[in-house]
Amino acid sequence: MAQTENGWSGAAVSDGLPEAAEDTLRTYVMERLEAAKRVTSILGMAATDQKNRALEAMADALWAERKAILAANASDVRDAEAAGQAPARIDRLMLNESRMEQAADGLRQIVSLPDPIGEVVESFERPNGLSIERVRVPMGVIAMIYESRPNVTVDAAGLCVKTGNVAVLRGSRESLRSNIALLHALRRGLEAAGLPADALQLIERAERATVDLLIRARGLVDLAIPRGGPSLISRVVEEARVPVIETGVGNCHVYVDSAANLEMATDIVINAKTQRPSVCNAAETLLVHEGVAETWLPTAARALLARGVELRGCERTRQILDANGITSVVPAIEEDWETEFLALTLAVKVVANLDAALAHIDRYGTKHSEVIVTEDPAAAARFLARVDAAAVYHNASSRFTDGFEFGFGAEIGISTQKLHARGPMGLREITSCKYVVRGNGQVRG
Amino acid sequence: MAQTENGWSGAAVSDGLPEAAEDTLRTYVMERLEAAKRVTSILGMAATDQKNRALEAMADALWAERKAILAANASDVRDAEAAGQAPARIDRLMLNESRMEQAADGLRQIVSLPDPIGEVVESFERPNGLSIERVRVPMGVIAMIYESRPNVTVDAAGLCVKTGNVAVLRGSRESLRSNIALLHALRRGLEAAGLPADALQLIERAERATVDLLIRARGLVDLAIPRGGPSLISRVVEEARVPVIETGVGNCHVYVDSAANLEMATDIVINAKTQRPSVCNAAETLLVHEGVAETWLPTAARALLARGVELRGCERTRQILDANGITSVVPAIEEDWETEFLALTLAVKVVANLDAALAHIDRYGTKHSEVIVTEDPAAAARFLARVDAAAVYHNASSRFTDGFEFGFGAEIGISTQKLHARGPMGLREITSCKYVVRGNGQVRG
Repeated sequence: MAQTENGWSGAAVSDGLPEAAEDTLRTYVMERLEAAKRVTSILGMAATDQKNRALEAMADALWAERKAILAANASDVRDAEAAGQAPARIDRLMLNESRMEQAADGLRQIVSLPDPIGEVVESFERPNGLSIERVRVPMGVIAMIYESRPNVTVDAAGLCVKTGNVAVLRGSRESLRSNIALLHALRRGLEAAGLPADALQLIERAERATVDLLIRARGLVDLAIPRGGPSLISRVVEEARVPVIETGVGNCHVYVDSAANLEMATDIVINAKTQRPSVCNAAETLLVHEGVAETWLPTAARALLARGVELRGCERTRQILDANGITSVVPAIEEDWETEFLALTLAVKVVANLDAALAHIDRYGTKHSEVIVTEDPAAAARFLARVDAAAVYHNASSRFTDGFEFGFGAEIGISTQKLHARGPMGLREITSCKYVVRGNGQVRG
Repeated sequence: MAQTENGWSGAAVSDGLPEAAEDTLRTYVMERLEAAKRVTSILGMAATDQKNRALEAMADALWAERKAILAANASDVRDAEAAGQAPARIDRLMLNESRMEQAADGLRQIVSLPDPIGEVVESFERPNGLSIERVRVPMGVIAMIYESRPNVTVDAAGLCVKTGNVAVLRGSRESLRSNIALLHALRRGLEAAGLPADALQLIERAERATVDLLIRARGLVDLAIPRGGPSLISRVVEEARVPVIETGVGNCHVYVDSAANLEMATDIVINAKTQRPSVCNAAETLLVHEGVAETWLPTAARALLARGVELRGCERTRQILDANGITSVVPAIEEDWETEFLALTLAVKVVANLDAALAHIDRYGTKHSEVIVTEDPAAAARFLARVDAAAVYHNASSRFTDGFEFGFGAEIGISTQKLHARGPMGLREITSCKYVVRGNGQVRG
């Protein structure tokens, strides 16, 4: 099976397995899903207190079983090294005592978050006397499809337990032994609190076809959440027949207006590009109003270059920087405006005005996080209203698009779609609602 | 092209058109979608006042152009009659002056509803001084895919205009001339209020492939809503690559508990089954606690039979009714528990207790609307908490699951999925939100 950098081999649906093997796989996945479905109502009706006890017990079990978990992880890491994986990827895969402690602490932190389930979101009475409440309820069964980081296994399990959802986890092939060991501990924790172990399911098979089986299981999976690189996400979105929340791709822009505080602009651009370049809320393109390009771009460019950023500039950018003795700017090509570099690379374009910046963002943005730096309230208001993105910023770094930075206390991903959840997703975003209607014999006339 | 009762020919994706014809079709649909996308920000930022003026002007234009609309509709009706369509279907297709008046009034009623766009759903400040607002915004481009009723064209157009969404409408082949005439008027109305006519698009081609082109247009369609029979809905859900809200299928149950007020139970069952049997919130199966089956079932059965309802009973039901001289009950087969009859047919089953009723609903329900009739508060509470459905009722008819009955003032469909919208969908349910973040230079540490 061909592996891309992200562990997925692109567009094909089937593993090309012999039919019998495919049947066995289907039977296996369906059995897991049926087991998950059988316990949805137990999880859905569990009291906050019991769910919190389960989270504590899951944290304890992780710590108690850390030796077995770290041993399993060491085997995964050894194989990844033998396969010549990149160091960054191996680092993501690797667990150690400190990371185990963090994972367990993460579960304990979820205990302190308010339980969204049962919340009466709104209530109203109708003239005929019907009392109607909209009540927050679990989604049911959530399939998480993700890549190599085993900490996602623990996070997702914790967030699902807190929200009364049953989690079916499908991590990557290379973290399979780590995930099996983690799940052993997490399921023990559930049982210690009197909840069914089947509320946490791991797909213990690494064949690609298991993903397709999960995301096509209408009636058994209420929501699929892909977390990972663009190829994983687009494959899930393309092939899914169950509801999906799309996460992740962020081609984010910082627009520095003619009325910007230029010192602030430099700080924000540096932060948005360099503080953690590998993540979706990092900036990928800088748009500069031509009114400040000549005065500010050289300063900004020097600061970025000093931090190891490669600049890819439009013609005007290169002229200005060239005239200031900065000659290392690569000519930007069309593709650069479209690319989520996820690296210390920044595309730079001089634009005639705010409208030109808006048009550029309309065309190339991925509706994730977009920033304007300006002291002009009218320009700020227009940008914030006009840009169609999950998060729009005035005078702040795009890096704040994050469940923890927003104060949600948790994050299961960042949605870039408009349906259901948009932006950072915390506990609330993996719930649904139902209408509870109480009458005294009302019939419709 | 084979037509099913609902005007769709089932599972095949392509019309089997020659390649050149398919290219032409693709070009046509993409041109419509590009035109729609170009005006999204104009609609999205239009003031409430302007949108309301557009709705008024759309209503006026419908009335002013009623002769042309009715003439076009008469041609559609004539062809449908010539094709031997069922009278009920022709009735759904038909417009007349009174229906035109209703359609125009419907648009005027939308004027009086509050504009959800711009609503600050929540706002909070972070310790670092960032101010974060979650603001309601339009979805963008909504593709409506529906069947023969031309009133859906007017409704959907009105709800989309009010919410600043651009509507791309794809009605059925048999209502095409009616829809073309309606759109002519509706677009005139938009223009009269200074809004772009392109905010309302009709796909003026009846080839099936246009549906696939719409629901696969990622990046151009933000939401697809299918409205119609099960074959249309399941085809859209199966083939879509854009977010979809699934509407409609309702295999709804009324459970009459041992502690029911039996007179109320009779009223509710009769209303839920017979008041309008062709709709999704009508009851399809009656579940009766064995404790009241002998006393109540004969009364209920007589009342239902007197209203022309065909009963399909389990063995126990038939024994009890037989012993009371009611011999017309058809033996229920497995399929009856699964069927949304949409007709004067009711499956009837005697169950041992509440848990048996819950298990039956778990297995056969479609998570639409479910009813318990009981005077026992504990049984009611358990049913309301335990049943996983868009709307759960205590002592009221399932027929209330409706945007107007819930007081939303509008309805664009009834969602049976858990993502985004569940139950009756009004204006709010065709909006999204975005985070608006205001700072004074904050960067992430």
